[in-house]
Amino acid sequence: MGSQPAMSRSQREEATSSKNLADSQLLETARLRRLSAERVTIENLWPEIDGGRHPVKRVVGDVFEVWADIFCDGHEVLAACVRYRDVRGRGSREEPMRMVDNDRWRGEFRLERNTRYRYTVEAWRDLFATWREDLLKKRKAGQEIALELREGRELVREAAARTPEVLDEWLRRLEAATESAALETALLSEELLSLMRRCGPRTNVTRYRQELEVVVDREQARYGAWYEMFPRSASNDERRHGTFNDVIARLPYVQQLGFDVLYLPPIHPIGLTHRKGRNNALQAAPGDPGSPWAIGSPQGGHTAIHPELGTLEDFKRLVSAARGYGIEIALDFAVQCSRDHPWIREHPEWFDWRPDGSIKYAENPPKKYQDIVNVHFYRGALPSLWFALRDVVLFWMEQGVRIFRVDNPHTKPVPFWEWLIGEVQDRDPGVIFLSEAFTRPKMMKKLAKAGFTQSYTYFTWRNTKAELIEYLTELTDDIPKEYMRPNFFVNTPDINPPILQAGGRPAFRMRAALAATLSSLWGIYSGFELCEAAPIPGREEYLDSEKYQIKARDFDTPGNIKDDIARLNRIRRENPALHELTNLRFHPAHDDNILFYGKMTADGSNVIWVAVNLDPHRAHEANVELPLYTLGLSDQASVQVEDLIEGHRFAWHTKWQKLRLDPQVTPYRIWRITAPGRVQ
Amino acid sequence: MGSQPAMSRSQREEATSSKNLADSQLLETARLRRLSAERVTIENLWPEIDGGRHPVKRVVGDVFEVWADIFCDGHEVLAACVRYRDVRGRGSREEPMRMVDNDRWRGEFRLERNTRYRYTVEAWRDLFATWREDLLKKRKAGQEIALELREGRELVREAAARTPEVLDEWLRRLEAATESAALETALLSEELLSLMRRCGPRTNVTRYRQELEVVVDREQARYGAWYEMFPRSASNDERRHGTFNDVIARLPYVQQLGFDVLYLPPIHPIGLTHRKGRNNALQAAPGDPGSPWAIGSPQGGHTAIHPELGTLEDFKRLVSAARGYGIEIALDFAVQCSRDHPWIREHPEWFDWRPDGSIKYAENPPKKYQDIVNVHFYRGALPSLWFALRDVVLFWMEQGVRIFRVDNPHTKPVPFWEWLIGEVQDRDPGVIFLSEAFTRPKMMKKLAKAGFTQSYTYFTWRNTKAELIEYLTELTDDIPKEYMRPNFFVNTPDINPPILQAGGRPAFRMRAALAATLSSLWGIYSGFELCEAAPIPGREEYLDSEKYQIKARDFDTPGNIKDDIARLNRIRRENPALHELTNLRFHPAHDDNILFYGKMTADGSNVIWVAVNLDPHRAHEANVELPLYTLGLSDQASVQVEDLIEGHRFAWHTKWQKLRLDPQVTPYRIWRITAPGRVQ
Repeated sequence: MGSQPAMSRSQREEATSSKNLADSQLLETARLRRLSAERVTIENLWPEIDGGRHPVKRVVGDVFEVWADIFCDGHEVLAACVRYRDVRGRGSREEPMRMVDNDRWRGEFRLERNTRYRYTVEAWRDLFATWREDLLKKRKAGQEIALELREGRELVREAAARTPEVLDEWLRRLEAATESAALETALLSEELLSLMRRCGPRTNVTRYRQELEVVVDREQARYGAWYEMFPRSASNDERRHGTFNDVIARLPYVQQLGFDVLYLPPIHPIGLTHRKGRNNALQAAPGDPGSPWAIGSPQGGHTAIHPELGTLEDFKRLVSAARGYGIEIALDFAVQCSRDHPWIREHPEWFDWRPDGSIKYAENPPKKYQDIVNVHFYRGALPSLWFALRDVVLFWMEQGVRIFRVDNPHTKPVPFWEWLIGEVQDRDPGVIFLSEAFTRPKMMKKLAKAGFTQSYTYFTWRNTKAELIEYLTELTDDIPKEYMRPNFFVNTPDINPPILQAGGRPAFRMRAALAATLSSLWGIYSGFELCEAAPIPGREEYLDSEKYQIKARDFDTPGNIKDDIARLNRIRRENPALHELTNLRFHPAHDDNILFYGKMTADGSNVIWVAVNLDPHRAHEANVELPLYTLGLSDQASVQVEDLIEGHRFAWHTKWQKLRLDPQVTPYRIWRITAPGRVQ
Repeated sequence: MGSQPAMSRSQREEATSSKNLADSQLLETARLRRLSAERVTIENLWPEIDGGRHPVKRVVGDVFEVWADIFCDGHEVLAACVRYRDVRGRGSREEPMRMVDNDRWRGEFRLERNTRYRYTVEAWRDLFATWREDLLKKRKAGQEIALELREGRELVREAAARTPEVLDEWLRRLEAATESAALETALLSEELLSLMRRCGPRTNVTRYRQELEVVVDREQARYGAWYEMFPRSASNDERRHGTFNDVIARLPYVQQLGFDVLYLPPIHPIGLTHRKGRNNALQAAPGDPGSPWAIGSPQGGHTAIHPELGTLEDFKRLVSAARGYGIEIALDFAVQCSRDHPWIREHPEWFDWRPDGSIKYAENPPKKYQDIVNVHFYRGALPSLWFALRDVVLFWMEQGVRIFRVDNPHTKPVPFWEWLIGEVQDRDPGVIFLSEAFTRPKMMKKLAKAGFTQSYTYFTWRNTKAELIEYLTELTDDIPKEYMRPNFFVNTPDINPPILQAGGRPAFRMRAALAATLSSLWGIYSGFELCEAAPIPGREEYLDSEKYQIKARDFDTPGNIKDDIARLNRIRRENPALHELTNLRFHPAHDDNILFYGKMTADGSNVIWVAVNLDPHRAHEANVELPLYTLGLSDQASVQVEDLIEGHRFAWHTKWQKLRLDPQVTPYRIWRITAPGRVQ
């Protein structure tokens, strides 16, 4: 077989003369054959997380870059492509890669759909390109090339045998070239090179050792503004339990503030046994509503609705009404039960029981959580509980919910989340999961790797300039950026941070500006816009926490920062640079209280610079170095500036400028920059 | 099964109630079961090269450290071990891992044999340790613990059912404890904790996703001094072709210089067709011996001996005689043929033929190598050529050779080397391969990953302080240190570096000292000790290169540096710190010509500091900062110093010292350091 002339050179190159092997050698060659298929080295592929164990994340419309080291023995010209496929589709596609430097190659393709893609890299020796390059060198050195020309024609002949529709005409032209000069001209034509690149032999095609995966989410996975509120407070009357209808009435308010996700704590029946009272009291007083995270009562569990909120029909009306305002409803998914949850009776095998026959309550010794019990996920609960929990999520998806904020996922097995999110996104890849894992850094990241679309972060506890730069650099410029999307909540019902307790209104404005511009995802918990910060003394918790009681608020209270928030969300909406995370860059500001940074779209059409005074108590000024170089400008250039807070326009001349930020006036500035000669 | 009381808690924890599943669910649970087995996260394992694609390297006697991030949901106490096995042995062993910080765990085991080991990490939830830790916290908080004590006893009961020989006595003691206080004391005993650590339940045992491999070489793989000589020049008479007997007569000389490997260029019959003449002339004159790398003549190929050198018996006597001097013979393995090699006639399918029926000579256009032809490795040559080449190596192993220096491996397929070295080391794991790949950096590294024991490097072209520090840091402190062992040749028959051509004797002394102390492997090509450096003008090649002619030398020529070389090799032998590579550390010296560095054994018993003047033309002095902190000493401390070049002893007081190095006196200093209170 190896010597038949009808066989192409590349076929011969790939084939092996197996029929000549003695049987004893066949066994011996297993490793040889496996290894020999890897003639071209493809390694150090990027992006690849944990040796391919976890996917990376992108959103629809992104251009996806793939990098790899590619090289081979000898001096032959190589070619390579990214090969990719939609996991739901058939067949694969390829995009060419190009060598950048030092055997490092780059390719890209556009992520067109909300799905998962698998991608890998293929590379091969391109014999025609090699032949052509060698010929040019020999010709330049004045060497004899007649034999080389015959070899080149032979390569085209072999390729034409496989793709006559493309190459037959060329082959006839080459065969008609009786003069050496004519043959040379034809063989070296750019058009033939291009055709041979497409249809020529691919020799020693090597594929990277595995396929990798990229999860392509809808855009809301990366860009959004969240508002959290307790629906039972939507009545704005402590004596009347709010309803979904009350929430519907609040939608215009949420829209005016510019939020596009409205997140509700659990809406299910609340347990009675060991119900918590106000301020986390072990005993509830009559009429105390209890914590909505103590899920389950005789009235139902995770697929039931707390009767005082309304009916399932009411809820569906809320989802639909919100959509009319451009707002999505996000539900809480908390895997825990009150003692009264129907599951305890129906599925005792999902729970831990003690030697005296009592149920084991949640605890983290010496702390006890008396109003809830945890399920376990293994033993008798595997897989029946896993299916039941998945079906809870599917149930709410049927009611129109596509965003879930997951409570304390780090206290449940990671494999459960990886499985659950996979199951859900197999059915609807547009479903978004936000991980509330305030835990150790590696677990926080692992949950993101396992599939969570977005993550709560340590942002609430990062206050100094050094802390913010270090943390944001880790999130936006290091490996985690490939799989973790930080959602910067400025507060939560559980977190009333010291900076807000001590800093007053300027601190609220400052933290809102940081969250809304540093990350493409941010959120507030109701009351933030009113600068609420009364703590349980010495703690990070709210006094009279809404977790245990209904709250009424004056949403027009003097000193509120609703205008700030609405303006921040409007600026975000109008400036695509702020829809991205990894384009954040910090710039020099010669004062430890002034943080100066910017974001720019890849095409440079939208440029935003931000300066924030991190000290809510005092004015500070700093010399800042405008990053004119990022606009391709010299240090002496001028830029047109639009102050997005005050609305006026001016120009900055040269790169060093002095800024002053008085927290009593405005703790932050946001500018849109236009370089000379650019039209915005 | 899940509810039978006889089943242990851990068994229940691991088991799943599969028999209750409907058939349709069985299919559905495949992914669930796969994922659920990974409850404990084990990731970021180190060392791991390219996702486990390639092994790391160590030598016999090394303590092998394994690191991993290990964590799990919840607050349970975890335990972990490194599990490892000799690929040639049966069964595996385990060594415990301990958490260091931030969920990063460390374990280690000793590499006892010259073999390959596979290793991985296992981790699990330790329910007894968790129970004990929780109990202590609850007791401290003054909480009721009677029920907890019963739960603890239950855990021991379950473990005792599996290992009664270890735990039955303890179980009886616990069951006899009628008083709560006695039960508490017994359950909390350290001895029980230790027994339970060994025999207690391992819950949710998770194994890292793959086994990784470590190649454990004999010590000579990492530590050695090489001497290269052409045996045909061993006569030291240009008119008489040297023989193996002449080489035997040179062995005392090689031993006196302190070398332990004697490497010979190819010893096979040399082709006649297109034989090269002196200084690479295209036409050989009558009597010109030709390049020994043009392998093969009618007298034989890769398993034959050039008749003028002697017989196979002579060669075996050389191998044996060298062993008597503590010297190993290393052979050259060059996969290329002269036009007269028997393989061309016997195996035309291993070679490339041109349209006019002529054979294709080696070339790298526009350069042509007229005296050799290359084999190809695919098509008709796969696998027959691979077997033939392996058998060449096996043939020389049968003659007692266990070190091979491989010529230009980067021009042959990487998979071939990976396969060949695997085949050889499966038979004798003590065989050493040195890669002569002066090529692009990633290919150089890839060959080391593919199995080469040692590698030639860019050392010859690294001259300035910045270059040396950058390159040595890459080799000794970055990922390559796990798989690549640099062998620092100061010159080769192909490389007559500019620094030696221009720097004279001081440059030879300086480069020898650098090579011998920066790396644990170094080598010289014959003539270096005589400061030979006459170049072909303007090139890095030797004039009258020994590659094309027999050379006679005066080995006592004035100005030779034999004493330097012998002393360097003696210092290396006497100081185990210099037997290692990755213990190299650079220290501050405030002059760009003075390089100051040190090596220390892990136990601190041997400490070597070195200073080198990199300028062969002028004396330089520098303030250097002695790294007293590496000895646990303050900046004001004193150390005892032994000057290993001059032999005298003195003391250094405080960390800042001034050094002066005059290249005409001595371009380098090597000191052995003794801290106060240490006995050397």
